[in-house]
Amino acid sequence: MALWFTENQSENVRFSFRVKEQLFHGKSNYQMLDYYDSYEFGRVMVLDNIIMLTEKDEFIYHEMIVHPAFMVNPNIKRVLIIGGGDGGTLREVLKHNVSEPELVDIDDLVLKTAPKFIPFTGKALEDPRAKVMAADGIEYMKTKSNEYDLIIIDSTDPISVGEGLFTKEFYKNCFNALKEDGILINQAESPFYYEKQFLNIYEKLNSIFPIFSFYSAPVPTYGSGYWMFGFASKKYHPLNDFKADSFDLSTMKYYNTDIHKAAFVMPNFVKNLLKR
Amino acid sequence: MALWFTENQSENVRFSFRVKEQLFHGKSNYQMLDYYDSYEFGRVMVLDNIIMLTEKDEFIYHEMIVHPAFMVNPNIKRVLIIGGGDGGTLREVLKHNVSEPELVDIDDLVLKTAPKFIPFTGKALEDPRAKVMAADGIEYMKTKSNEYDLIIIDSTDPISVGEGLFTKEFYKNCFNALKEDGILINQAESPFYYEKQFLNIYEKLNSIFPIFSFYSAPVPTYGSGYWMFGFASKKYHPLNDFKADSFDLSTMKYYNTDIHKAAFVMPNFVKNLLKR
Repeated sequence: MALWFTENQSENVRFSFRVKEQLFHGKSNYQMLDYYDSYEFGRVMVLDNIIMLTEKDEFIYHEMIVHPAFMVNPNIKRVLIIGGGDGGTLREVLKHNVSEPELVDIDDLVLKTAPKFIPFTGKALEDPRAKVMAADGIEYMKTKSNEYDLIIIDSTDPISVGEGLFTKEFYKNCFNALKEDGILINQAESPFYYEKQFLNIYEKLNSIFPIFSFYSAPVPTYGSGYWMFGFASKKYHPLNDFKADSFDLSTMKYYNTDIHKAAFVMPNFVKNLLKR
Repeated sequence: MALWFTENQSENVRFSFRVKEQLFHGKSNYQMLDYYDSYEFGRVMVLDNIIMLTEKDEFIYHEMIVHPAFMVNPNIKRVLIIGGGDGGTLREVLKHNVSEPELVDIDDLVLKTAPKFIPFTGKALEDPRAKVMAADGIEYMKTKSNEYDLIIIDSTDPISVGEGLFTKEFYKNCFNALKEDGILINQAESPFYYEKQFLNIYEKLNSIFPIFSFYSAPVPTYGSGYWMFGFASKKYHPLNDFKADSFDLSTMKYYNTDIHKAAFVMPNFVKNLLKR
């Protein structure tokens, strides 16, 4: 067997895994979509040749993009996910007692294929408790005001399709769409390869929200493996308002209460980056 | 430019970086040694086609393999490094007020070339305060008893040359070579790809030392990027005996007092692995 998938993590770094079988190849109006079955990582979803998730490590990313916010405000009911068409973030949101979570992903092809090719995340998209829409998150957000307890931006990288989900205007619309104690979580790239994008997120969100912190988790199949999330909040502080006993976390595979606190700790090189 | 170095991180995963120039290629009695200059990672040292360190991220590994022990016992004076022929661990040890630290690396070729090709770590090998020996660490350890405050096993992976540095017999000799309040630190692989090796380290060290914990750090150029260290100790507990004000940490690039505490936090999947 000599079939390999290769991602260019940067111009000068490549990450490859051995493929059992290409399960699907398609092109939507927005991007190229591939599903693979792999030896090391199980099923893998790829957009425009960038790994979006693998069966082996998606639990880290999806637990970490969802649960910290709920442990800070256990009363979150109204949730909006922008992107996240693979269904993993929605699956984790549905572990909480929420009221019809909404998911808006621009790419209908992703939404239609994920339940079949990556059912471990994709079948959440068919859950009758959720409202899943194929629509432009940027436009959708312009119509909303004072509505959500939690918005999660589960986007691709800030290039091509995902670019508009990293602008100041979009973040301001998210701010307006949140209630007065609302929280915004976004996937925030890595400070190791993508320093500029990382700082860009910081400058924008930090200027709009009264409370902003990064938190980190290891995601082995993302560039550098050292991945960041942004926690932007109108009222609740991610550590001072942390409520350790809010939920039963025993079924989590990555997240626990100590991990919550540890994830917000930043090493000196990141602190120094943010000081500049 | 189309020169790429590729490491097989596992049978089914490859990691590649673009090379500016191969600076050195040699073969010792023990292993193949290469130095590269790369676009993304600066200088890189490679043993038997496995990345040992890169100029860009070695600071994380070397700070984390050295400083946590000193912050738990600030009175560490006698230090032995097994392996670590690149000099990075020694460089960090020499930031403390220690008494002639010893470094025993089996491969003279590594010790002779590191100061030239990777001076940012290698020049520590020429520091007159240190005693650097080209010798077999396994044999060296058999001759020592009740001598060291700290032993650091800065080895290659538990295959080929490094294998003997992961045996129960070797760990017992380390135990004997340590003083009654001694600490042993080792590089402990990753639970993501190398689950078996990781558990192997746990079972052995945990059965010999009264106190044992893993701690983690992100090392982007090691397999999975999620790397572990073992903290094995006769007396001091890594968190209960942590002395936050022992040293000025302002020049550290990764490590700080909050990172110390966060590094010892384990996610559920690692806790569950260790319970089995």
